[in-house]
Amino acid sequence: MVAAPSSPVAAAMARAVTASRLVQGTTSPNPPVGCVVLDAAGAVVGVGATQPPGGPHAEVVALRAAGDRARGGTAVVTLEPCAHHGRTPPCTDALLAAGVATVVYAVGDPYPEAAGGADVLRRAGVRVESGPLAQEIERGPLRAWLHYARTGTPHVTWKYAATLDGRSAAADGTSKWISSAESRRDVHRFRAQVDAIVAGRGTVLADDPQLTARTPDGGLAERQPLRVVVGEGDLPRDARVLDEAAETIHLRTSDPREVLAALADRGVVDVLLEGGPRLAGAFLAAGGIHRVLAYVAPKLLGAGPAALADAGVGTIADAVDLGIEDVTRIGPDVRISAVPVRR
Amino acid sequence: MVAAPSSPVAAAMARAVTASRLVQGTTSPNPPVGCVVLDAAGAVVGVGATQPPGGPHAEVVALRAAGDRARGGTAVVTLEPCAHHGRTPPCTDALLAAGVATVVYAVGDPYPEAAGGADVLRRAGVRVESGPLAQEIERGPLRAWLHYARTGTPHVTWKYAATLDGRSAAADGTSKWISSAESRRDVHRFRAQVDAIVAGRGTVLADDPQLTARTPDGGLAERQPLRVVVGEGDLPRDARVLDEAAETIHLRTSDPREVLAALADRGVVDVLLEGGPRLAGAFLAAGGIHRVLAYVAPKLLGAGPAALADAGVGTIADAVDLGIEDVTRIGPDVRISAVPVRR
Ligand SMILES: NC(=O)c1ccc[n+]([C@@H]2O[C@H](COP(=O)([O-])OP(=O)(O)OC[C@H]3O[C@@H](n4cnc5c(N)ncnc54)[C@H](OP(=O)(O)O)[C@@H]3O)[C@@H](O)[C@H]2O)c1
Ligand SMILES: NC(=O)c1ccc[n+]([C@@H]2O[C@H](COP(=O)([O-])OP(=O)(O)OC[C@H]3O[C@@H](n4cnc5c(N)ncnc54)[C@H](OP(=O)(O)O)[C@@H]3O)[C@@H](O)[C@H]2O)c1
Repeated sequence: MVAAPSSPVAAAMARAVTASRLVQGTTSPNPPVGCVVLDAAGAVVGVGATQPPGGPHAEVVALRAAGDRARGGTAVVTLEPCAHHGRTPPCTDALLAAGVATVVYAVGDPYPEAAGGADVLRRAGVRVESGPLAQEIERGPLRAWLHYARTGTPHVTWKYAATLDGRSAAADGTSKWISSAESRRDVHRFRAQVDAIVAGRGTVLADDPQLTARTPDGGLAERQPLRVVVGEGDLPRDARVLDEAAETIHLRTSDPREVLAALADRGVVDVLLEGGPRLAGAFLAAGGIHRVLAYVAPKLLGAGPAALADAGVGTIADAVDLGIEDVTRIGPDVRISAVPVRR
Repeated sequence: MVAAPSSPVAAAMARAVTASRLVQGTTSPNPPVGCVVLDAAGAVVGVGATQPPGGPHAEVVALRAAGDRARGGTAVVTLEPCAHHGRTPPCTDALLAAGVATVVYAVGDPYPEAAGGADVLRRAGVRVESGPLAQEIERGPLRAWLHYARTGTPHVTWKYAATLDGRSAAADGTSKWISSAESRRDVHRFRAQVDAIVAGRGTVLADDPQLTARTPDGGLAERQPLRVVVGEGDLPRDARVLDEAAETIHLRTSDPREVLAALADRGVVDVLLEGGPRLAGAFLAAGGIHRVLAYVAPKLLGAGPAALADAGVGTIADAVDLGIEDVTRIGPDVRISAVPVRR
């Protein structure tokens, strides 16, 4: 049964999603989950989200806030509660101990070892329902973690900025700024939510980017993703990507699969690949791009390097087909989000 | 005074716009205008649109349909009625003879010699009001004609199809089909509404396009725009663009200004420039592109020719800035419409 969209449960799920968005980027390798606890009368008595690894899960945070008022109430969660012992005890235990009568969750747990939270609760007499917003959550806060849970490798979003005619710089190499201040702010918002930012050595040599997440006022965001430079050659000692603002690793490889394996080993779930064209081409050819985020600026150049190179495609029939997920106007620009389509 | 949007007048204006859209491409060098006549009680008693050059204007067509019922009624027109003698008598005469009490028009006439239709009517005791939908009409059916009236040269829409990474073909030159069947249908709809389709000799040599307007079932549209090939060299005798399906001219020049002057001489108001990259670059450099219509296909190639070349831009500060007018999803593709921004 899916709860009616105007019910207190639907409002609670929307609030749980918001709570989960706020912790995106701080929970890996755990999923960023949100939970809202309603008392028996349907009033919100606790809101929680997953704490950093080793800390309590969303359900436990929300139940602690609710205290006794959870008894006979409803827990509304973005992901099916876990039933297994990891670094923390199972959330099903906490829900049963708190005496909630109903649990509503949006997305089923894809992990074979964790799945069954719903069954455990049902067997203990709790009413379990599936809730609204599952698709929004699967494409949003839980997207990267669900991919990681299913494949064992991080989810990669390739982000680039280009002119309407597909140029990522002018003929003389200048590219500041192709996209607008609004688009750059949007990128910093994404950066603050991922576990790692990856760039090729060519981009570091050409642009000397810092690859940090910044707040709208230009300051460093509180939490910084891991910075990753890929390439076999050396980096300049004074490269900004090697500064103190965040941790940086240099992976001396040309194989995207090695990059993803190394990142998975470090608990990285959500990756923003920021180019350049050749590294993006290599990732695409290796099937290592799971979403494309294109910031298209309404400018025309007619010359200059393209945003993507050397993806191993020689003829139109071999083009990488995508499906568009979202088109949004960001300031003067258009942001197109698309995902590879399996053939 | 602007009529309230829910009034019979607003509904009549919407119907007048629809009538004018249906004659787009058949009226040049006259504007495609629509007119709806309401009787004194507000009922629709006549609908008309501009007939081909030499034929009656929209007002006359609608008044003829209305007959006596126009007396004391309202004429709702997309463009201010003309007050001058051209190939047909002034529309103001017809409106006065019919005895309409009120005239509502959306867009003022930009021609110094024609303007004053509103004044002529007012002086004769007719109530004259400005009506709704002016912006929609200025950007829509009357767009090209207003440009032509203000500048004396045709309005040029540069249309192209490219992958998300800005390629107009794969590395081996293959490009069938970059964009979807839905986008191609959309292009044929545009073709059927313009006066001329322009392409460079390179595109004719490479692709041998027919450059005709086709109906959704693949047949030739009833009316075909003039086909124009630009380039100093010869065309193959058996080029499809030289077939019997429509009239074709070959302009042996490299100067976009000469192309526009030659077309203006032939009464061409609305032009669809279909590339290729070098001719589009030359038009852009000459300020000869007034709208860009990009069909962006969600595919990635990473190699292959770009959609635009040699526009004379060397550095990012000299990029041609556009403002996005519209973003629409067409089947799997995204259509972006943008216009150059004056600096
Ligand atoms: N518009 C945008 O969004 C955007 C974003 C980023 C960069 N850019 C532009 O891109 C330009 C740099 O282009 P680029 O292609 O040199 O940058 P790149 O892709 O960042 O770097 C290429 C380097 O990456 C390393 N690499 C690792 N694995 C690779 C593989 N499988 N294939 C190829 N290279 C691999 C190689 O380093 P080693 O030689 O050390 O092995 C190679 O030299 C700059 O002008 C920059 O402005 C634009
Ligand atoms: N994706 C799309 O929407 C699209 C659309 C059209 C074409 N294309 C592709 O474009 C490719 C052809 O490219 P192209 O650049 O050769 O085509 P083009 O721009 O159509 O043709 C170039 C030719 O146009 C003539 N021309 C006239 N004035 C010019 C000027 N000021 N500057 C340069 N040329 C001028 C020249 O002919 P003369 O030598 O006779 O003087 C020149 O050789 C084909 O592969 C085709 O598939 C793609």
